[in-house]
Amino acid sequence: MIRIYGDSISGNCLKVKWVAERLSIDHDWVEIDILKGETNTDSFLTINPFGQVPVVAFDDGRTLAQSNAIITYLAEGSDLIPEEAFERAKVLEWMFWEQYSHETAIAVRRFQKLYLKKNDDEIDPHLMAKGRRALGRMELALLGNDWIAGGEAMTLADISLLAYTRLAHEGGFDVSEFPAVHGWIARCERELGLPHLHEVTDVQV
Amino acid sequence: MIRIYGDSISGNCLKVKWVAERLSIDHDWVEIDILKGETNTDSFLTINPFGQVPVVAFDDGRTLAQSNAIITYLAEGSDLIPEEAFERAKVLEWMFWEQYSHETAIAVRRFQKLYLKKNDDEIDPHLMAKGRRALGRMELALLGNDWIAGGEAMTLADISLLAYTRLAHEGGFDVSEFPAVHGWIARCERELGLPHLHEVTDVQV
Repeated sequence: MIRIYGDSISGNCLKVKWVAERLSIDHDWVEIDILKGETNTDSFLTINPFGQVPVVAFDDGRTLAQSNAIITYLAEGSDLIPEEAFERAKVLEWMFWEQYSHETAIAVRRFQKLYLKKNDDEIDPHLMAKGRRALGRMELALLGNDWIAGGEAMTLADISLLAYTRLAHEGGFDVSEFPAVHGWIARCERELGLPHLHEVTDVQV
Repeated sequence: MIRIYGDSISGNCLKVKWVAERLSIDHDWVEIDILKGETNTDSFLTINPFGQVPVVAFDDGRTLAQSNAIITYLAEGSDLIPEEAFERAKVLEWMFWEQYSHETAIAVRRFQKLYLKKNDDEIDPHLMAKGRRALGRMELALLGNDWIAGGEAMTLADISLLAYTRLAHEGGFDVSEFPAVHGWIARCERELGLPHLHEVTDVQV
């Protein structure tokens, strides 16, 4: 049994939930409200001195933070990580890119727009440009490929990138401009048994 | 033989060089000048569609980007990556944190100050605060530990974090405020056979 400390509004936290569910890893979800400052309390900092969710606690008291490090640990030996060394390296390449060049634009703009209720003119315009570049980079990779790191099966790279790409519209991004990405979102959702967020959104719009 | 495309002023690129040297991996270094826009030329984008250095090209034409993904691939099976799964996960935890919470403050402020020649009042004040928080987090981890991820030997987490921590003074950070970090820099430099940058700098100041 593991305990996942996470905020349900955070894509980074959902990655961990999805991997635990996919691999049938017995887990408890402990809801931590970022907006209420619950990642900065003394008791939380004892669990994760980085002051961030997600963090996972194991039965023996050990803890692990950083969404992509957690899912790599949980998925070791599963079909979510390719066996061949170079293919595995490509998965990790996308996961580092996700944290540096994707999340920092798409998740950040979503947070500012949706949760901090900022108007578009109060948000750094670089975030839109950077986020669109990231989606364009994914589009390029997904032309002719079902999965982001190439290969025949969904990997951690897809799960990692799905988390915020799936919610990009909440940050003001129009994913329908990127048809291969749009199709890939639905493919990942099917694979993970998640509701088709984008088709629902399209109808509502 | 591998080709490393890198800019010598970039800590991210130096990580790859250090690991290749440490593990006696036969390599050529191809200098790419970021400031001259050489990561955005058509020929470079063919090698790395992400438009970033470092990128490594192998004899068979395959390429791999993202500094921390590259060094993980190069170091597989070496003593720079712990054998035990959880220890390996902790190394990855620090490497993801480095790219998200450390590099984005310490490397970015250095780049703006040293290469874009910005004055302190032209630099986003959050970068100093965020960088100091990152150094403080490292200090906490290094109190009583020789190496950042715990354990008895230098790992990729140390090499990854050394790259910009060692150059933090060029970004206006005073590493001497963090004595455990200061000692750890010298320890890593000794282990990697690098000159002791900080002692030299101290004398020059």
